[in-house]
Amino acid sequence: MAKSSKPTQKATAKAKPAVSPLAPKSFPKLPPLAGVRLATVAAGVRYAQRTDVLLALLAPGTQAAGVFTRSKTASAPVLWCRDRLKPSKSGEASARVLVVNSGNANAFTGKAGQDGVREIAEEAAAVARCRADEVFMASTGVIGEPLPTSKITKVLGQLAQEGAAGNWRAAADAIMTTDTYPKAATATAMIDGVKVTINGIAKGSGMIAPDMATMLSFVFTDANLPASVLQECLSAGVGPSFNSITVDSDTSTSDTLILFATGKGGKHAAISKASDKKLTDFRRALDALLLDLALQVVRDGEGAQKLIRIDVTGAENDGAARRIAMAIANSPLVKTAVAGNDANWGRVVMAVGKSGEAADRDKLKISFGSQVVAEKGMRAAKYNEAAATKAVSGREVLIAVDLGLGKGASRVWTCDLTHGYIDINGSYRS
Amino acid sequence: MAKSSKPTQKATAKAKPAVSPLAPKSFPKLPPLAGVRLATVAAGVRYAQRTDVLLALLAPGTQAAGVFTRSKTASAPVLWCRDRLKPSKSGEASARVLVVNSGNANAFTGKAGQDGVREIAEEAAAVARCRADEVFMASTGVIGEPLPTSKITKVLGQLAQEGAAGNWRAAADAIMTTDTYPKAATATAMIDGVKVTINGIAKGSGMIAPDMATMLSFVFTDANLPASVLQECLSAGVGPSFNSITVDSDTSTSDTLILFATGKGGKHAAISKASDKKLTDFRRALDALLLDLALQVVRDGEGAQKLIRIDVTGAENDGAARRIAMAIANSPLVKTAVAGNDANWGRVVMAVGKSGEAADRDKLKISFGSQVVAEKGMRAAKYNEAAATKAVSGREVLIAVDLGLGKGASRVWTCDLTHGYIDINGSYRS
Repeated sequence: MAKSSKPTQKATAKAKPAVSPLAPKSFPKLPPLAGVRLATVAAGVRYAQRTDVLLALLAPGTQAAGVFTRSKTASAPVLWCRDRLKPSKSGEASARVLVVNSGNANAFTGKAGQDGVREIAEEAAAVARCRADEVFMASTGVIGEPLPTSKITKVLGQLAQEGAAGNWRAAADAIMTTDTYPKAATATAMIDGVKVTINGIAKGSGMIAPDMATMLSFVFTDANLPASVLQECLSAGVGPSFNSITVDSDTSTSDTLILFATGKGGKHAAISKASDKKLTDFRRALDALLLDLALQVVRDGEGAQKLIRIDVTGAENDGAARRIAMAIANSPLVKTAVAGNDANWGRVVMAVGKSGEAADRDKLKISFGSQVVAEKGMRAAKYNEAAATKAVSGREVLIAVDLGLGKGASRVWTCDLTHGYIDINGSYRS
Repeated sequence: MAKSSKPTQKATAKAKPAVSPLAPKSFPKLPPLAGVRLATVAAGVRYAQRTDVLLALLAPGTQAAGVFTRSKTASAPVLWCRDRLKPSKSGEASARVLVVNSGNANAFTGKAGQDGVREIAEEAAAVARCRADEVFMASTGVIGEPLPTSKITKVLGQLAQEGAAGNWRAAADAIMTTDTYPKAATATAMIDGVKVTINGIAKGSGMIAPDMATMLSFVFTDANLPASVLQECLSAGVGPSFNSITVDSDTSTSDTLILFATGKGGKHAAISKASDKKLTDFRRALDALLLDLALQVVRDGEGAQKLIRIDVTGAENDGAARRIAMAIANSPLVKTAVAGNDANWGRVVMAVGKSGEAADRDKLKISFGSQVVAEKGMRAAKYNEAAATKAVSGREVLIAVDLGLGKGASRVWTCDLTHGYIDINGSYRS
């Protein structure tokens, strides 16, 4: 997302890239969620003939939590949302509206960009009859081009009237940029014997790497949870999901993940701590949903033809394991080898070596799928080239590395690096 | 270099990639260098119908210094050379022979790989009538495949007989792997009024990133300098040259840069310290030669169509400037944009933001060539799309970033990311 800077031209008709071969077979069925109404419109922010503004109306009392890019050049909407979520005396973070546009990231747009955010917030507050500081916002698309604020503000009134409970597919469509398919997931969980629902949408699909790595994702639940609890659940859940994926090692200026709880589902016991055992099932469901969405983003990585999982074990500690896993996941040579069905474990050795973390050649063990390809400082005695090639030839590839040094472990996901990535990014301002 | 693991197949006839459009117009004329004799042969290590073993015979008294990969999975020859250069009581590091092979990196080859190194050293010592610990070695090519040691040992006697002073072009040719042209440079300098000569050769051309980043490079001088002085000169010179280039952020297991001084040129004053002012001109010439070789490597980066220089100024300190420059240089999105003649400064903003270093959006200034494209937190007021596009459309592109925060500065070089890189690495075990 958030990738360009061309000032004048409209994105014109272009050969639409084929849907990723890794896409889920169908869009999941998301049920209506009490306290959330959605509407979208083609406002012409940048793209022609497609929806590009999403309005989500949230019931009074909705609480919010968020995780954002750690970029030092974060976009205006990211700065705005962070301000909304600063801990208040009450511990509350009230949310009534979410406005998302695609086509323009409103990043590196100076004071005009910040003014635009305020204008949108004020107009959204007017149409939703709430305070401006209860409005959340996200933008994705071109960097550095002035946001055509009025194109967004002028559609908000209409969107507020049209908001309806079942528009999840439309919502997921409206926030896409170079995505080849809309991304969503749903789950249910029990809190204290009461069923609650979680719905989420997300978009990718380049400029994706952790710290944090979510592009845009919005998750909604009808559970009744205070902002502080939501934040703790979200911050914990993002580690093994959105923060464990990488497409190209590039981190967007606009990465935003917001979790909203409307409290309008079945009435359950009050929860005041994230560690409350009554939340165990909810947190499990939330974690799984975040991982589902994150993997959908990787599966739609620009040019992706394969999903690659990297499991590192036996490192000195978890941090070392993670850095090794990321060194492998971000290695262009590993990613191009997998693209070419090449069981090139030498490049995995290289990536381990360059991570800077402790490694002992003679203890290192590398597997592709179930095939051990290297151990004891050399090619595995039973190495079988045909089997190793087969292990990297499918749509899903597992690279497992055991350092043999300690108990540190980490799992990350990436995709292969193909001509498609070059096509999208070398000849196309998305 | 050092990129593969396929165990059985010989590299067969393949469409030879076109010579990089960034290659120098011709191979430089390197003069004979007193105390160095060179010979090459097609030993069939891996490649058919090309030379792949280089023997350099060095006059008695030759001193050596080296810089090697920081990979934790360094190759057997790297470990061997490091041992040779461990500080001795005398401060000397005597070198009599250099043996280099292409086609096999002898990396991740276990004890057999170490044994192979010793066998080669012993045979080289026998034919050169020196001690095994005066033999230096480097290997580049496939990782993880057992080195066919005997193919190398059996040609050393013949090579020792054939060694001649003028074979620089043949030497540069024999060490190539995916390089599209041989790389060499020559310089002269004055030490205490006496002219000395420096000749160097190098090879790339993927798996190239600093810490350290030299692939293979061997530099020879006829100056008379002790090992400790050589080491200090080399370590200082590698920073702004080989350690300031990156092709794909991947660091080889085999990166090796060795500097030999034969002492067989014109007689000059004894030098015992690198800081000796008599060495100023020599160090200037050495630094320039190292930079020349390093840039030749980038110009032959796999798939490279453009040389990109990144100048970062105004950072908090030099280290921060370097990390920002490297974040830009290693960004696939920046590199693909340049490949596509896309003046996509938004991606530069992104790369600055992801570096983790201090940056203030409103103080950041970004230029392509002489065109300021962004400043004061937004697109430059005088931004001109046509001029910006022109600035990124040539063979050499300058991206300048001023942080406006301090005096930290750094300069690095990279190349663009093109379909050629995918072709070479995704469908070709080099």
